[in-house]
Amino acid sequence: MTVKIAHTPDVQKFFEQAAGFGNDEGSPRLKRIVQRVLQDTARLIEDLEVSEDEFWLAVDYLNRLGGRGEAGLLVAGLGIEHFLDLLQDAKDAEVGLTGGTPRTIEGPLYVAGAPLAQAEVRMDDGSEEGEATVMYLEGQVRGPDGQPLAGATVDLWHANTRGTYSFFDQSQSEYNLRRRIVTDAEGRYRARSIVPSGYGCDPQGPTQECLDLLGRHGQRPAHIHFFISAPGHRHLTTQINLAGDKYLWDDFAYATRDGLVGEITFREDGARGGAGRYAEMQFDFQLQKAHDSDAEQRSGRPRALQEG
Amino acid sequence: MTVKIAHTPDVQKFFEQAAGFGNDEGSPRLKRIVQRVLQDTARLIEDLEVSEDEFWLAVDYLNRLGGRGEAGLLVAGLGIEHFLDLLQDAKDAEVGLTGGTPRTIEGPLYVAGAPLAQAEVRMDDGSEEGEATVMYLEGQVRGPDGQPLAGATVDLWHANTRGTYSFFDQSQSEYNLRRRIVTDAEGRYRARSIVPSGYGCDPQGPTQECLDLLGRHGQRPAHIHFFISAPGHRHLTTQINLAGDKYLWDDFAYATRDGLVGEITFREDGARGGAGRYAEMQFDFQLQKAHDSDAEQRSGRPRALQEG
Repeated sequence: MTVKIAHTPDVQKFFEQAAGFGNDEGSPRLKRIVQRVLQDTARLIEDLEVSEDEFWLAVDYLNRLGGRGEAGLLVAGLGIEHFLDLLQDAKDAEVGLTGGTPRTIEGPLYVAGAPLAQAEVRMDDGSEEGEATVMYLEGQVRGPDGQPLAGATVDLWHANTRGTYSFFDQSQSEYNLRRRIVTDAEGRYRARSIVPSGYGCDPQGPTQECLDLLGRHGQRPAHIHFFISAPGHRHLTTQINLAGDKYLWDDFAYATRDGLVGEITFREDGARGGAGRYAEMQFDFQLQKAHDSDAEQRSGRPRALQEG
Repeated sequence: MTVKIAHTPDVQKFFEQAAGFGNDEGSPRLKRIVQRVLQDTARLIEDLEVSEDEFWLAVDYLNRLGGRGEAGLLVAGLGIEHFLDLLQDAKDAEVGLTGGTPRTIEGPLYVAGAPLAQAEVRMDDGSEEGEATVMYLEGQVRGPDGQPLAGATVDLWHANTRGTYSFFDQSQSEYNLRRRIVTDAEGRYRARSIVPSGYGCDPQGPTQECLDLLGRHGQRPAHIHFFISAPGHRHLTTQINLAGDKYLWDDFAYATRDGLVGEITFREDGARGGAGRYAEMQFDFQLQKAHDSDAEQRSGRPRALQEG
């Protein structure tokens, strides 16, 4: 028989005390959230008859998860980050805020402060020449009515051929494959980079440990992350996921969405002036109008900033 | 207006997929728990209209919490560990398992493998002589019908005068203030140690950061932790909390319980053979019968083991 006490007035009152309801200091907002977390946790323990051993394994897991800094990776892998996108889509639809390039998850691997370039830039440091395929990526940023947006900022970051990111992979040079490009008078950006490989969770890390127990892989298709911003327009966090990748529609982080698949074309015609194989991809972005200045900004999520 | 999607069939199905319901690998038990966590998290986000910024602050907090290894401290401070005791008490009452010394929380600072002694032992390494007050602690371990239990193991650990614990405070010697004492023929144990000070959360740590926002302190009364075990008897995890401490009934971890207050007596009569002030405390334990061999064991909680 299942014994339950979480609903009793005594236990409810205990959780209120623990959440700080008995004092006037601190943050009323956090108190309310913590109270709910306590109630939900207690009910989960009771409803699923979570054993002491299971509970303490979960606590130990949280220590290991945070010890490796993988909480952001886990919320992506468990689909919570994608859920936040779905919820924002629904909120937007409710108020008629539609149109433009779809949003998708940021992921945990952005680093602020990448080098800023006008209109075009080379993103890779050349360290993978020979192994990597050169990629020419270009496109246009447009506003709601289709007009080009000059002076928009295209802040993009992607993995190298091993699927790892500079800063988090300390073997890469500073800001390798991370740039901010300001669009030209026609709203265009152009990047020369290398074709990224898909990302995979660290096989030894706590996120993959959880995914293993859920019978799931921890792989993402090759992709390129973007923050697109322009004065008067709504900030866009999105990604291009590359067509043809085996994980395109089997992304452990659920970032691939209709309208965000990048058609990449491989050529070997010398047209770009070099010998050998190269890739081309074109991707345009359309922004919505910002209804207030907050909407022009990305979320306040704590992010890494490389020490120069 | 509050927009909600977590209850929709599409989102429910998405969470099932994320929890691994779509495959036959892994752990069905963990899948069920993760599905529930996803549902609860989504509903909490919707019900309390958790903003993106709030969500990402929470993710960042989890990384910092685990980075400092404080998940076990936080679940004590938020009362979840005490809730587990209340729930176990209720389960016991339901099946008529009553009597004996009350259980209370273990806390996160046990270290396995402390030195084993017969009947009596000195616990402190003498490094705080002069500052510390010598404490003579003794008592008897008894069974359900009051008979003394010879050969019971009294595994006890406590803080020093600064409120810190060996192993976690690397300035202390190995296993300082941690011992296992096997009771004598009369079920008695005797320890010479020092009077502990109360424990306080690291003021710079993430647990105290949360408590500050809840308007709460992070202090515990002076106390001594115990694991009491004996063949055929139910394992007991408990603590003595010292009478007279200002935090006795204002313990941030909610460990103090009726029946677990230790009356400590300070003397200066030379009766123990030394000069100066010393303290005496007597505390007896009564165990329940074990109904199966599992009940003789402490929980499988992952614990520290000092490298010798």
